[in-house]
Amino acid sequence: MTQTPIRSTSTLRGLRCRECGAEYAAEARHVCEWCFGPLEAAYDYEAIRSRVSHQSIAAGPRSIWRYRPFLPVSGERLIDLGTGLTPLIRSERLARRLGLKALYLKNDAVNVPSLSFKDRVVSVALTRARELGFTTVSCASTGNLANATAAIAAHAGLECYIFIPADLEAGKVLGTLIYGPQVLAVDGNYDQVNRLCSEVADRHGWGFVNINLRPYYSEGSKTLAFEVAEQLDWQLPDHVVAPIASGSLYTKIYKGFQELIKTGLVADKPVRMSGAQASGCSPVAEAFRGGQDFVTPVKPATIAKSIAIGNPADGIYALDIARKSGGSIADVSDSEIIEGIKLLAQTEGIFTETAGGTTVAVLKKLVEAGQIDPEETTVVYITGNGLKTQEAIAPYAGEPLQIEPSLASFERALERARTLDRLDWQQTLV
Amino acid sequence: MTQTPIRSTSTLRGLRCRECGAEYAAEARHVCEWCFGPLEAAYDYEAIRSRVSHQSIAAGPRSIWRYRPFLPVSGERLIDLGTGLTPLIRSERLARRLGLKALYLKNDAVNVPSLSFKDRVVSVALTRARELGFTTVSCASTGNLANATAAIAAHAGLECYIFIPADLEAGKVLGTLIYGPQVLAVDGNYDQVNRLCSEVADRHGWGFVNINLRPYYSEGSKTLAFEVAEQLDWQLPDHVVAPIASGSLYTKIYKGFQELIKTGLVADKPVRMSGAQASGCSPVAEAFRGGQDFVTPVKPATIAKSIAIGNPADGIYALDIARKSGGSIADVSDSEIIEGIKLLAQTEGIFTETAGGTTVAVLKKLVEAGQIDPEETTVVYITGNGLKTQEAIAPYAGEPLQIEPSLASFERALERARTLDRLDWQQTLV
Repeated sequence: MTQTPIRSTSTLRGLRCRECGAEYAAEARHVCEWCFGPLEAAYDYEAIRSRVSHQSIAAGPRSIWRYRPFLPVSGERLIDLGTGLTPLIRSERLARRLGLKALYLKNDAVNVPSLSFKDRVVSVALTRARELGFTTVSCASTGNLANATAAIAAHAGLECYIFIPADLEAGKVLGTLIYGPQVLAVDGNYDQVNRLCSEVADRHGWGFVNINLRPYYSEGSKTLAFEVAEQLDWQLPDHVVAPIASGSLYTKIYKGFQELIKTGLVADKPVRMSGAQASGCSPVAEAFRGGQDFVTPVKPATIAKSIAIGNPADGIYALDIARKSGGSIADVSDSEIIEGIKLLAQTEGIFTETAGGTTVAVLKKLVEAGQIDPEETTVVYITGNGLKTQEAIAPYAGEPLQIEPSLASFERALERARTLDRLDWQQTLV
Repeated sequence: MTQTPIRSTSTLRGLRCRECGAEYAAEARHVCEWCFGPLEAAYDYEAIRSRVSHQSIAAGPRSIWRYRPFLPVSGERLIDLGTGLTPLIRSERLARRLGLKALYLKNDAVNVPSLSFKDRVVSVALTRARELGFTTVSCASTGNLANATAAIAAHAGLECYIFIPADLEAGKVLGTLIYGPQVLAVDGNYDQVNRLCSEVADRHGWGFVNINLRPYYSEGSKTLAFEVAEQLDWQLPDHVVAPIASGSLYTKIYKGFQELIKTGLVADKPVRMSGAQASGCSPVAEAFRGGQDFVTPVKPATIAKSIAIGNPADGIYALDIARKSGGSIADVSDSEIIEGIKLLAQTEGIFTETAGGTTVAVLKKLVEAGQIDPEETTVVYITGNGLKTQEAIAPYAGEPLQIEPSLASFERALERARTLDRLDWQQTLV
């Protein structure tokens, strides 16, 4: 399904500074020359409104590209590996455990091709990169972005350089190397990697998906909002819980909902936006708690490496959205993250990475604090797969019972296991 | 989306012996009492034909359950995590590399929830298990089945026991334990594990998805045929290449195509069926090469553990289909499997496990041997995810370049890498 041709004229009108409103052509740039504010894609919403309907979307590709008029590309050559349209699962067992009536799980742990929401943003960024004439693409990544960029660049035949912190999980390193890019492991944390990449981007003129292509890249996360609305039969949820790393995903989900309202695809209603961070890297949650409208950078120290961004680019926008929408931003400890991963796996059959464990643990925390109404239609975003961060969870997942290939050996092991269970149970009674 | 209610009367008519045709009620049994042949689900195809159309399927759930009339369940409570409807990718770069004009990749490496085709068969088996009153489910597995059974049992709230060979890949063990089943690691190979499980099934009366529930379980693989046909706009391909372990997946894909013809959903045409095995466990390929109509069991010794079944239950049926359809069954070495994994990742951005590497390597081998016509519409089944078998590929995937977080360090590393590339290149010229 590569390069599905879609007949349509572009709705992308250029870039606009989020702070001062200055306008730019839709080039590879991400910072306003006047005020240094971040640039965002700007669209002709009248054109979108006149062109898009529930039916036209349903008749589109089985991927994020069904929402193409809302995405910042101009040509017909789309990079389409079937990314997006991941399941929205109505939770039964987790919902019951938490006492929620209408809980949904958006499962990007099974996104295509590389098992995280980053497949969305990279599909958009590299499609735009190709339109802008780049033949070499790159990124600074905490892992999931590395996987997605390497995979999708391989598919599209683009040359690829990936920058990662040297201490990344083995699965994320292998899950990048396998696609054959040049991988640079930087002896530093993500924020240092990111700074280095800004210099490399200036020097080499490559397309960095999360730097000079950031205005295009970040828009891909809006599809997480579009899909949820479509999967709820074109209704918005009452409350969403999403992880916050740079804050980009969280703010773009909000933007996606607003665009659906603006173009008449859903009825206008409030959506409470709650955010999840790991306590070992929770600058936005700290600011939320402290009532600040600025974010003080921190040095990350958490197992949730994929969301460990100490100096979040969109932190202040996330704060603003949480406050004006009536949501919360909370953080949870590494041990709560582990419990969140296990809780989701054991009640719903979804194995997520540490970021997903963070989100589930924050959901639980917000429910316990009375900040999620049991009657609210609540959507939790599960953004990556547990097979990528095995070292974080392996020590806590238990061990198989070792047996010989005989019925007698099995029966003995079963008896031992049941006795242990009984003992555990008796101990909990003491 | 658990337990989607669908209004429909069951088309399942019972079980029938594949060898002698004896008929049985649709219970938990898998072997004919008269001739010891395998039992298969039997349907009322007239009822299916009158009830099913391209439109009714398109209007169904976004999962394997859109093909429900072809699946062996009778009730309304379906276990649906969004399994199936995985992408069918039109290959460009791999096709060009191999000189094929119309190559498609069916990507079950991103299946839901546990990243292999086993999610299909287990969703069907556990739905049926619940209909038959089982509250405890189990399986003997080389890994992917363990993952799928544990995940889907957790989602459905069924008690779960999983039997695996003790030497399984770490990712497959963790990717089972995480869902909280009782895991039994058996000191033996898969065939020994399987024999033990037959005894346990008799003794404990549990629902073993691949033993007493096998007639239901195996039918789930037909959805791999249905989806490909639907994704090709209700055309059958000319040639498919699929892995052969027990032979079940391969034979059920064939059965799925035949059922579509029988019910008028596609035009009748021949489909050449080719099968892939690892040389370290290739009893069916050996029999194919030797012109035998029986399969001599072997002791597996290959990195492709998920397809290492030395005594394949459906081997003789696979042989028959390969011969009558004009396909081939071939095998490849472990080093060819590694190359197959890398080739697929680097040309298409799909990271598959050893079974998928086997299938791609066999595809390449068949093309080179002139056994696949470049003009044929060829579909290759990629059945599982590479993150599950990291130890098999890690030593061959290369290493990142280690750098300091400075532009100077990066430039030095880049220069070194380019020099090494040039040296490699010069050496290839020598």
